[in-house]
Amino acid sequence: MAQNIYDQPEFFAGYSQLGRSVEGLDGAAEWPALRAMLPDVTGLRIVDLGCGFGWFCRWAHGQGASNVLGLDLSEKMLARARAAGPDTGITYERADLDQLSLPRASFDLAYSSLALHYVADVERLFGTVHQALSPGGHFVFSTEHPIYMAPTSPGWSIDGEGKKTWPVDRYLVEGPRTTDWLAKGVVKHHRTIGTTLNTLIGTGFTIEHVEEFRPTDAQIAATPGLAEELERPMFLLVSARR
Amino acid sequence: MAQNIYDQPEFFAGYSQLGRSVEGLDGAAEWPALRAMLPDVTGLRIVDLGCGFGWFCRWAHGQGASNVLGLDLSEKMLARARAAGPDTGITYERADLDQLSLPRASFDLAYSSLALHYVADVERLFGTVHQALSPGGHFVFSTEHPIYMAPTSPGWSIDGEGKKTWPVDRYLVEGPRTTDWLAKGVVKHHRTIGTTLNTLIGTGFTIEHVEEFRPTDAQIAATPGLAEELERPMFLLVSARR
Repeated sequence: MAQNIYDQPEFFAGYSQLGRSVEGLDGAAEWPALRAMLPDVTGLRIVDLGCGFGWFCRWAHGQGASNVLGLDLSEKMLARARAAGPDTGITYERADLDQLSLPRASFDLAYSSLALHYVADVERLFGTVHQALSPGGHFVFSTEHPIYMAPTSPGWSIDGEGKKTWPVDRYLVEGPRTTDWLAKGVVKHHRTIGTTLNTLIGTGFTIEHVEEFRPTDAQIAATPGLAEELERPMFLLVSARR
Repeated sequence: MAQNIYDQPEFFAGYSQLGRSVEGLDGAAEWPALRAMLPDVTGLRIVDLGCGFGWFCRWAHGQGASNVLGLDLSEKMLARARAAGPDTGITYERADLDQLSLPRASFDLAYSSLALHYVADVERLFGTVHQALSPGGHFVFSTEHPIYMAPTSPGWSIDGEGKKTWPVDRYLVEGPRTTDWLAKGVVKHHRTIGTTLNTLIGTGFTIEHVEEFRPTDAQIAATPGLAEELERPMFLLVSARR
């Protein structure tokens, strides 16, 4: 059973104030890069693993997806997603990605934004997703980058001259990482890029694109604070195909 | 034209004393992991990109490879490789991997150990390798891991309690990195894992395995100094298939 941190009041309150929660997809710097990795969603049957407030589900519905299933562990997020509508074309269900079952060949696209790092057993989940996709179906996801997640102290080291570095350690020691982000004791699961990709390949997926997200020059010009993201990647974006 | 650092006397003298130069493949901690990614080489036509002293060429020849072409930019390394024999089954040629041409469909396996990080234009090289492989042919290589190569100061940061971290910066700023290793001004080319894999995919390769090398527990027990390699990866190992 995955940790249901999003339903803790302190976490939920903090998460609700993030740019990506208030502004939706356009509040997430990596969304244009992730969107560019998606197939044309027109007419597709889509499952969103960790749908949160449902921003992606509504976007896909608006783009002409055939139907969209949004899954999340958080009752609070699902309630807000359902309240945002629309009443048809999108279904929201509560699901634990560590225990998920999905019907065979029932989706053309599986999507997941920043949820897989909460999953302990991705081999099981990738297998579930693979059999749930139609032949040729797409699996496109973002997850926290292992460089970002690995360290004992996942924060900037700043030297006497103000130079920022990211103090990587334990990169090759996979397993849980507990940090305080929005609330105390948030549990994530550290895996190398190699493990993520080899698990996909071992499950039968073909790797199509791997992106260690870098803000564009235009994004940095518009939001200078993003420049520090060039120092170390925060997000890993992957597209794979059944 | 790639930098021919290996032929500089200071570099060559230092490199010749490394474990992997004296002991050969068994002196390289990552060799068992890389070997496990190779197909059975019996009867294969093999090209080794950056063959150095020819240790892999001789190993492959000994395993029954049909014929082996070893390529390197360093005259000194090729001279020593040729002197080690045997006189048939292995051919050594001088080549700059940034300007390489290879005949079409002439090899079943392309191998490269720790040479690609000296190559500025891997897109060109991967294209050359792809067309030189027979359909279904394998490309297996190791390269310096981008976490290792990225930093302005690629060395351990050690805090007051002796805790080691690897100070990552400039990870998403690809391009040359100049360091002093065995000699001053060694030029390597930093690329993210994503760029390396996407370039392979774009060239027509299918990714088969991606490994961020971690010494085994047995290796660490035998050589306790290897334990620090768990903190950050030094080598990236990839196998791909035409």
